[in-house]
Amino acid sequence: MAWSTNLRWRLPLACLLLQVALVILFGFFVRYSPDADAHWWEEKRRRNITTDLENEFYYRYPSFQDVHVMVFVGFGFLMTFLQRYSFSAVGFNFLLAAFGIQWALLVQGWFHFFEDGYILLGVENLINADFCVASVCVAFGALLGKVSPLQLLIMTLFQVTLFSVNEYILLNVLEVKDAGGSMTIHTFGAYFGLTVTRILYRRNLEQSKEKQSSSYSSDLFAMIGTLFLWMYWPSFNSAVSYHGDSQHRAALNTYCSLAASVLAAVAMSSALNKKGKLDMVHIQNATLAGGVGVGTAAEMMLMPYGSLIVGFICGIISTLGFVYLTPFLESHLRIQDTCGIHNLHGIPGIIGAIVGAVTAASASPEVYGQEGLVHSFDFQGIKENWSVRTQAKFQIFGLLVSLGMALVGGIIVGFILRLPIWGQASDENCFEDSIYWEVPEEKSTVYIPEDPSLKPSAPSIPLAPLVHLVPLTP
Amino acid sequence: MAWSTNLRWRLPLACLLLQVALVILFGFFVRYSPDADAHWWEEKRRRNITTDLENEFYYRYPSFQDVHVMVFVGFGFLMTFLQRYSFSAVGFNFLLAAFGIQWALLVQGWFHFFEDGYILLGVENLINADFCVASVCVAFGALLGKVSPLQLLIMTLFQVTLFSVNEYILLNVLEVKDAGGSMTIHTFGAYFGLTVTRILYRRNLEQSKEKQSSSYSSDLFAMIGTLFLWMYWPSFNSAVSYHGDSQHRAALNTYCSLAASVLAAVAMSSALNKKGKLDMVHIQNATLAGGVGVGTAAEMMLMPYGSLIVGFICGIISTLGFVYLTPFLESHLRIQDTCGIHNLHGIPGIIGAIVGAVTAASASPEVYGQEGLVHSFDFQGIKENWSVRTQAKFQIFGLLVSLGMALVGGIIVGFILRLPIWGQASDENCFEDSIYWEVPEEKSTVYIPEDPSLKPSAPSIPLAPLVHLVPLTP
Amino acid sequence: MAWSTNLRWRLPLACLLLQVALVILFGFFVRYSPDADAHWWEEKRRRNITTDLENEFYYRYPSFQDVHVMVFVGFGFLMTFLQRYSFSAVGFNFLLAAFGIQWALLVQGWFHFFEDGYILLGVENLINADFCVASVCVAFGALLGKVSPLQLLIMTLFQVTLFSVNEYILLNVLEVKDAGGSMTIHTFGAYFGLTVTRILYRRNLEQSKEKQSSSYSSDLFAMIGTLFLWMYWPSFNSAVSYHGDSQHRAALNTYCSLAASVLAAVAMSSALNKKGKLDMVHIQNATLAGGVGVGTAAEMMLMPYGSLIVGFICGIISTLGFVYLTPFLESHLRIQDTCGIHNLHGIPGIIGAIVGAVTAASASPEVYGQEGLVHSFDFQGIKENWSVRTQAKFQIFGLLVSLGMALVGGIIVGFILRLPIWGQASDENCFEDSIYWEVPEEKSTVYIPEDPSLKPSAPSIPLAPLVHLVPLTP
Repeated sequence: MAWSTNLRWRLPLACLLLQVALVILFGFFVRYSPDADAHWWEEKRRRNITTDLENEFYYRYPSFQDVHVMVFVGFGFLMTFLQRYSFSAVGFNFLLAAFGIQWALLVQGWFHFFEDGYILLGVENLINADFCVASVCVAFGALLGKVSPLQLLIMTLFQVTLFSVNEYILLNVLEVKDAGGSMTIHTFGAYFGLTVTRILYRRNLEQSKEKQSSSYSSDLFAMIGTLFLWMYWPSFNSAVSYHGDSQHRAALNTYCSLAASVLAAVAMSSALNKKGKLDMVHIQNATLAGGVGVGTAAEMMLMPYGSLIVGFICGIISTLGFVYLTPFLESHLRIQDTCGIHNLHGIPGIIGAIVGAVTAASASPEVYGQEGLVHSFDFQGIKENWSVRTQAKFQIFGLLVSLGMALVGGIIVGFILRLPIWGQASDENCFEDSIYWEVPEEKSTVYIPEDPSLKPSAPSIPLAPLVHLVPLTP
Repeated sequence: MAWSTNLRWRLPLACLLLQVALVILFGFFVRYSPDADAHWWEEKRRRNITTDLENEFYYRYPSFQDVHVMVFVGFGFLMTFLQRYSFSAVGFNFLLAAFGIQWALLVQGWFHFFEDGYILLGVENLINADFCVASVCVAFGALLGKVSPLQLLIMTLFQVTLFSVNEYILLNVLEVKDAGGSMTIHTFGAYFGLTVTRILYRRNLEQSKEKQSSSYSSDLFAMIGTLFLWMYWPSFNSAVSYHGDSQHRAALNTYCSLAASVLAAVAMSSALNKKGKLDMVHIQNATLAGGVGVGTAAEMMLMPYGSLIVGFICGIISTLGFVYLTPFLESHLRIQDTCGIHNLHGIPGIIGAIVGAVTAASASPEVYGQEGLVHSFDFQGIKENWSVRTQAKFQIFGLLVSLGMALVGGIIVGFILRLPIWGQASDENCFEDSIYWEVPEEKSTVYIPEDPSLKPSAPSIPLAPLVHLVPLTP
Repeated sequence: MAWSTNLRWRLPLACLLLQVALVILFGFFVRYSPDADAHWWEEKRRRNITTDLENEFYYRYPSFQDVHVMVFVGFGFLMTFLQRYSFSAVGFNFLLAAFGIQWALLVQGWFHFFEDGYILLGVENLINADFCVASVCVAFGALLGKVSPLQLLIMTLFQVTLFSVNEYILLNVLEVKDAGGSMTIHTFGAYFGLTVTRILYRRNLEQSKEKQSSSYSSDLFAMIGTLFLWMYWPSFNSAVSYHGDSQHRAALNTYCSLAASVLAAVAMSSALNKKGKLDMVHIQNATLAGGVGVGTAAEMMLMPYGSLIVGFICGIISTLGFVYLTPFLESHLRIQDTCGIHNLHGIPGIIGAIVGAVTAASASPEVYGQEGLVHSFDFQGIKENWSVRTQAKFQIFGLLVSLGMALVGGIIVGFILRLPIWGQASDENCFEDSIYWEVPEEKSTVYIPEDPSLKPSAPSIPLAPLVHLVPLTP
């Protein structure tokens, strides 16, 4: 590949056109929900509530902010682990997410918040948009270092749409429960991303292999991402659960599951290293697998020990995946998965879907209370005659649909992204910021003595003669 | 300038005197608000409320914490982008903000929370103090690298006072709406800082020009600041809005506006670079312009598409400012604006004020509902006969007053700071931590082989011959 | 010491066994609290509440998340300041905290949340578990760089247990007030850790002395920890206070105290340096002392000026401790306190306990209101006849018990950790990540010209001759 990576006109045009289109569509379609509209006074009378606290804002806003941090700092910094690609990791994630949330507000709005010709905007829409974009961030993890920002915008455009269709089928047609998105976000995002990276297979990627490693400080930056994901995941899995016990329980279960993942990841990381040393890749990723694994069941009566078991198993399998499966996928299936999303989102996502189905199947009036059971699984209206086994069956259908949508969608989008017009880098320039960014030159050489601060940095010019000098010496 | 930069007595004395003065003033003036006082039981009876949830704490505390993060981590890390000045950026910001919030609690308290001889302290005071200090952080951005911590303390002392006077005039005399502070915080802070930096013009600053650049890791640290500012800005603009729909709407509008700014900043950054590459300065700053731009109108019925338009325009203009205006200001007007606050806070602040006036002018009972309109703009009591056009007119007065206060205040404070007694550095030592900080020496040379960890690390192989070479040269 | 540091079997086995034990114990003992159980519908009827907002989740969850960030990012990153030990700092903190919170949920649960044979889990348990683990993180600070992850797990196992016993004695037997844990968390954690490090005294630690320093970027990473601790400390001290005014007041007092600590720390840091320069160690640590110092009294009517005084004094004493006491402890008492926890948690913890006792002793119905006084100090039931002086006396007993438990517990645990089976490093390998971690090798040499990014850094000395060499080559 020797296509031009100069995006001077293509990227600005794409951004500007997309943004103008969004403005127009927002103008036609998006208004405030009753809780955010100045007519709130009438709404309060209508709903017969006396306190502003019943505004949805106060139930959900703190969770929203945590989710927001996960998408931008969590995913953004988690991917900075590559030594020469940190600008792109955090910057492209910023770009795709900022575009994606706007587009998701529209597409999800048409599906879920459409009334009298308008999408009604409130804090719940924001959370859902962040969720949708999280699945794009997941897919980005597989492609990290190999795609241009333009490709990411195109992918986001399609993936957000497909995500919303899939989500609609699961939540509104199949009536599936999936609070934290094991299926809709993680499974879908992961297999979509893996399919795309398979289509975009790069034969000569070993030319840039040495850039695929981390540096000491890039690993620390990545830990910022890991920790914010880990800490706020209880908010993620509970953010759109029903008020009260569901939201509370989802947070508790996720907290437990994540804690168990950490011990599992540390154990396996050490056990699989011949000197017993820990590997930062595992600590950065497999510690999070428990959050994915309880994504569906978190709001159910999974029980704290159930959460621990799920987190424990996911942590183990995820670490095993990084050690054995990722190399296998690359060498045998030509799936180049930069961040190992298959281990963090793919397999744990499927586990999460199955755990959700099993937990649903074993729900009973004894455990939930009769009212609790009906409320938790919406066994009313069209679902009035559903049994928990019906629910479980549909949960599994939801998983299969998500996988199907991911594969088909991924193939289509993959081929679109293969077109040689998006400014993608050649194989030897992958994982390299300087293709798309002005990267600061370190000219601090002269200052080394007085300047103990900023990493010495060998001068580029003086070193060149060095190489020539060597043969000259007798 | 060859004045002493040794602050051994001056800085400690200033800190201790200021802190002792604060203790005394707090002792005389500051008590708890009814919501934070142990007499809350009586207050609940008096206000006839049955639940502790009606305590202001639960309405505002999560937003307060987000704002707090913006001031300390947001501004602090955003300014770490300079390669040799990161300690000072985050450390001096910490110092000035910690002093500033205490002083702001007093001065704002006298203006806004004074009852029966006491300032009554509650969570809203904390938010307002953080807001006030945010305007000092903005001004610090223009001066970054060129002033001593002592100068910053002096500036904070004056700027907090001026801010509070200006805020009082705007909110209580002109009855202006300015929820997120486009005028009070951003416009005032920016033009105050720009005026000060103009007065402190340094003729020979190009001597330290090479230190004004960033390094790879300093740019990443700065992105931490950018992202926390970006993510929490919806909390900032909604933190002191009225309960219920206003707070909710302010968050939604800010979220939309910020998202649009990102695409605008990326588009312009790429379009203005001859190779189409992105510039970290724009991504770190212009992406935030939308938050400033909706600072006044966020709580109004700006409409989601209106927010997108504002964010989009601010992102474009801000990036253009970094490319064309900042160099012009420096070369023609002798305004050395280190962080480009004119582009992030100055122009977007003015835009925000105008957007606020226009949005107010176009408010109508149809859009707000009669009660909503009265409530949103406080059209009762002394404002009972105001029309929306009156409101708009006063909004513009508010902008003009803010600009005037900033210029006059900036000139006075600028001349005070020019006195040669504050330990400021000489021109060639600007942007250099080691003037004011013990900076760790990197002696990792000897350890390179066993220590793959920290820093780079000169190559072990090429270096080996070098050592042998030395004796060989005659 | 030349014991094997290869943890390949020991660490995984320990993690897996502990996690399996936790799963089993959770299975037997842990269920959901009524607020998190699907029977919440019945609970609402029983408690006669009509809104989900009265679920404890909405009172405490935002504070919980802030505390959670403090434990994982706050403590984790604060300890990354060592130039070669950042992986271990953030990674081992992650491991011990993830284990510790699970174990704390059990042990604290048996003491405080045990009903009908089950521990009932809710958001308050999570906060308490994080609190408990915070005391382990404090102790870890003294041991940083000198212990293996296995030792940390063992220490956590014991310390969590001892913490919970001590906490039970203080809160339930002595009926002490200690909202932010000046005694239970800080004093106990610090003196426990100091005792352990005394027992583990390493004679030849100066062999690794040069690794005990920081680097420019490690100091910046540490500032992330400092700032998140500093910003969220008001949430920490108020997280488990009574609803309403107590929680509100605790946040206000902590905010004030912390602000005063910053000025005190800066003043002393500059005054104690012969060139008046600031020392990052002080800024990273002593600025936080005010949060510890108001840990007991924060929820009392300490008054804002009282908080300022406490923060001011703690900041001064803490900085003095870093400069004079830490070297003394090491050279004379053989206490090697890596992070200086004695200055940040030890002394300020004791101060906090005394401040709490004094504030309790001076409580009066005039200041609190009769109901407020009874409510604030629980002067009902078995405490019905207590005077404020009785309360104060018991507060002091609480401090003494905490100190006693810390010393005795520390001695026992110290000797257990001295067993030569835990994979601890030899003295010359202390403060070195590569013993326990795969550390990325920087092979960036070849790429220097095209790769301005990752700070290559040639050694300063070898380069000097290079410059002379160049002209010499023909």
